[in-house]
Amino acid sequence: MTVSEIDSLVYLMSKLPALGPRSARRAVLYLLKKKDSTMAPLITALQEVYTAVQPCPICGNMDTQSPCHICLDKKRDKSILCVVQDVSDLWALERSQAFKGVYHVLGGVLSALDGVGPEDLKINSLIEKVHAGDVNEVLLALPATVDGQTTAHYIAESLDGFPIKISRLSHGIPIGGELDYLDDGTLQTAIKTRRSL
Amino acid sequence: MTVSEIDSLVYLMSKLPALGPRSARRAVLYLLKKKDSTMAPLITALQEVYTAVQPCPICGNMDTQSPCHICLDKKRDKSILCVVQDVSDLWALERSQAFKGVYHVLGGVLSALDGVGPEDLKINSLIEKVHAGDVNEVLLALPATVDGQTTAHYIAESLDGFPIKISRLSHGIPIGGELDYLDDGTLQTAIKTRRSL
Repeated sequence: MTVSEIDSLVYLMSKLPALGPRSARRAVLYLLKKKDSTMAPLITALQEVYTAVQPCPICGNMDTQSPCHICLDKKRDKSILCVVQDVSDLWALERSQAFKGVYHVLGGVLSALDGVGPEDLKINSLIEKVHAGDVNEVLLALPATVDGQTTAHYIAESLDGFPIKISRLSHGIPIGGELDYLDDGTLQTAIKTRRSL
Repeated sequence: MTVSEIDSLVYLMSKLPALGPRSARRAVLYLLKKKDSTMAPLITALQEVYTAVQPCPICGNMDTQSPCHICLDKKRDKSILCVVQDVSDLWALERSQAFKGVYHVLGGVLSALDGVGPEDLKINSLIEKVHAGDVNEVLLALPATVDGQTTAHYIAESLDGFPIKISRLSHGIPIGGELDYLDDGTLQTAIKTRRSL
């Protein structure tokens, strides 16, 4: 193809995490076929997000307000700090509507393989927050992977000595999950940590 | 979430054919994390395509030129007309670099289930092109589905009486395809239409 404008748009779209070259072409064609009803609103929405959204200087959330609406919310319990790997995890927890504290986005987890050390993550600013004294509990909502749990242990050790509670999300069978499809590790954990009805 | 700008962008992205709500959120977060290196070029590319790309009045291809670069190309054989369902098929054939004629995009295939009749497709303008007399061969490059083949037969009947050759793409085993993974219909066709080495 010699159509460079379309090609370069397909190339940029194909770099998005869920898209490859083929699905990016399909997406661009979809936009081209309904330019006014799909492409124009998408351009406007992208421009609005581009100009308005910034990372929150306190927690690392992405928001149009700075600090973000969670950090500014007076109803949120500032004494419970939930540590998450990424903004997407923060959004997932917000969708669950089960957490009423505030967040701290690490920006990743420790990984020897990927060369991610403590200095690459927002661990120092977490310790500073706890040091400042307003935090009673740190909830480590990190992924149940080797790297995630290594990071959780590293943070727990770093916070050793502070008079705070350190908690983690419980492991077990996902709600709606079929036992047959679950991995052995999850089943073992669910049996070991069984609770009386 | 109360972040309406991000929400509306995620919603618009989730309408793209390859994306759902979850992958759209991931894509938006990816863009937000590297705003200047990913989001700014994407906005620019979208704007360029939005303003520059139009459907070709002759063949239906999407291009920055009007008529498109294929219809304007003097090296292309105007006497062979390749009928395709959609612009994506035209692009796929162009990538193969095997076809040196010109195209005619139908904009779909006949479908009783979806209520697509001949008047919904660019069949009349195809007949007019053949009627004008410059076409020697019509290659029906339509999908090997029931609807695609019904459409091919409908067009072949509509062009009955014109002194032209009507052809279709050959069916058979895809290059690199394992026999084990192929459906019965393809294998039957490949055996029936076997060729001597």
